Amino acid sequence: MSGTVFHTTRRIEFADTDMAGIVHFANFFRFMEAAEVEFLRSRGLSVSMPWDGERIGFPRVAASCDFVRPVTFQDVVDVAVSIVKIGRKSVTYGFEFSKDGEVVARGQVSSVCCRVHPDHKLESMEIPATYRARLEGRD
Amino acid sequence: MSGTVFHTTRRIEFADTDMAGIVHFANFFRFMEAAEVEFLRSRGLSVSMPWDGERIGFPRVAASCDFVRPVTFQDVVDVAVSIVKIGRKSVTYGFEFSKDGEVVARGQVSSVCCRVHPDHKLESMEIPATYRARLEGRD
Amino acid sequence: MSGTVFHTTRRIEFADTDMAGIVHFANFFRFMEAAEVEFLRSRGLSVSMPWDGERIGFPRVAASCDFVRPVTFQDVVDVAVSIVKIGRKSVTYGFEFSKDGEVVARGQVSSVCCRVHPDHKLESMEIPATYRARLEGRD
Amino acid sequence: MSGTVFHTTRRIEFADTDMAGIVHFANFFRFMEAAEVEFLRSRGLSVSMPWDGERIGFPRVAASCDFVRPVTFQDVVDVAVSIVKIGRKSVTYGFEFSKDGEVVARGQVSSVCCRVHPDHKLESMEIPATYRARLEGRD
Repeated sequence: MSGTVFHTTRRIEFADTDMAGIVHFANFFRFMEAAEVEFLRSRGLSVSMPWDGERIGFPRVAASCDFVRPVTFQDVVDVAVSIVKIGRKSVTYGFEFSKDGEVVARGQVSSVCCRVHPDHKLESMEIPATYRARLEGRD
Repeated sequence: MSGTVFHTTRRIEFADTDMAGIVHFANFFRFMEAAEVEFLRSRGLSVSMPWDGERIGFPRVAASCDFVRPVTFQDVVDVAVSIVKIGRKSVTYGFEFSKDGEVVARGQVSSVCCRVHPDHKLESMEIPATYRARLEGRD
Repeated sequence: MSGTVFHTTRRIEFADTDMAGIVHFANFFRFMEAAEVEFLRSRGLSVSMPWDGERIGFPRVAASCDFVRPVTFQDVVDVAVSIVKIGRKSVTYGFEFSKDGEVVARGQVSSVCCRVHPDHKLESMEIPATYRARLEGRD
Repeated sequence: MSGTVFHTTRRIEFADTDMAGIVHFANFFRFMEAAEVEFLRSRGLSVSMPWDGERIGFPRVAASCDFVRPVTFQDVVDVAVSIVKIGRKSVTYGFEFSKDGEVVARGQVSSVCCRVHPDHKLESMEIPATYRARLEGRD
C-alpha cells in the first residue's frame, strides 16, 4: 500500500442507529471490517478464502475506535483504509471515517493469519508470500 | 410439549434499540431464536449439535412476527415458546412476547433438520427418532 | 408504483454470517428495511423524516420471510421492492431476494404511519396525501 | 468501586457467531455495554435516564478490545466490570471476559456525560455529583 489509501463509502441504515438517535458505536467495528474486505477485494483477496489448497482466515486479535462526532441515519460516510503494519503473521489496518470532509471516527483492527481447519479450529501461520505480495500491491 | 409452554425472560439492551427509541423489529427474530435455544437446552438439545456421529443443524425456512406494542430499553419481556408442529423433517415454534402481562409481539419460526457437512453444505434429513423423542418430552 | 418494481443490490458482509456459514436469517429483515429505505429515497421519502412541521415514522407492525436458498459471504443479492398494499394508515412492501437469477428469499413488511412526538411516543395517523402521492409515484 | 469488581455472565447466542464458528468480534462491544448497564443498574443508575429534570446519556468516545481466545456458541462467559477512571465529565470502564477461569478478552470503553436534548442533540456536561456518588458507591 505504501502510502496509498483505499476509499469506500457507506450510507447509514436505520438499523445502525440506537435510541440516542446516532449510530451505535459497536457498528463502527462492522463498518471497519466491511471496508477492509472491500479493500482486500480490490486486490483479489479476502478475510476468508481458499489459498494453496487450504482455507485461510484472519481472526481479529485487537480492535479500537475513537468516536469523534455523532453519525446519523442516512449520513454517507467515507471510509479510508490504510495498512498500518504487516508483520510476519499479522496485519494491522487503520480506518478514518469522515462525513462532509470532517473526521467522525478513527480506528484500528489487527488480525492474525490462520489456517482454518474443517472443524473450525484456527492455527496461526505466516502470511503466504503470494498473499502478502498482493496485499502490498506488488502483484 | 403437548400443551406445555416453556418460558424464558430477556432484558432489553441499549444496542437492541433504534432511533425511534424502541427495539428494532429485526431483533425480535434474534430473541425468538435465543428462546428456542433455551427451550431446546432444557431438553438437552440444540440448534447445532453432534448427533449419532454427525452434526445436525436447523436452518430456518420461514419466520414471521407481529409487533403489537413497542418495547423499550431495560424492559423485561417474558418469551413463551411452544411447539406448533413437528413434521417429518421440520419443526415450527410459536413465540409470545409479553411485558407486565400484556402481549407485545407474537411470532413463528420454522426450521428444517439438516445434516451439516464439514464444508458447511446442508442436506435435509428426517429428524432422528431419538432427537424427536426428547423434543416432544417423551424421553 | 403500480406494477413497477424497484431494484437495489447488496453484498453480503462477514458480520452477516453465522456459524452455519450462511447469512443469519434475522439479517434479511435488516436488508428488507434498507431496501425499503432505498426505494423511498428514490422518491424523496424516508421511514423517518420531518413532514409538514411534524416528524413522521413508520414503525413495523408485521414482518415475514421465507428462506429459499442459503446466501453466503460476498454473495451479491438483488433485492426487488414492490408495494403490496397502501391502506389509509399503513403500507405493506414485498421483497424478493435473488442471486444469479434464482430467488433466495421472499418477504413482506407492514408499517403504520405515525406521528413521532419529541418524547418518542408514537401516535398512528393517516398517511399524509402529499406523502402518499409521492409514494405512489403520482408526484 | 475502589478496587471492587462487578461480575455478570452471558451465554453466547447463535446469532453472535460468524462463519468462522466463533463470536464475531464486534459483538464484544455490545457485551461490554450490556455489562456496564448491569453494573450501573446494580447502583440504581443507567446509561440513559432522567436526572434532575433532564435526560442524561453517556455516548461512547473510545472503545478497544483485545481478543485472546475464541468464544463459541453456548459458551458462558464471565464479564468483570471495573471503573478505570472517573473524570469530571467522562468515565472509563474496564472489562475482562473469562471462560472456565481463562481470560478470553479484555477491553475498555470511555463515555462522556451528556445532556440529551429532546431533538437528540447531545451537550457534554459535568457528571452530576449525586450520580457520581452513586457510581462510586458512596451513596
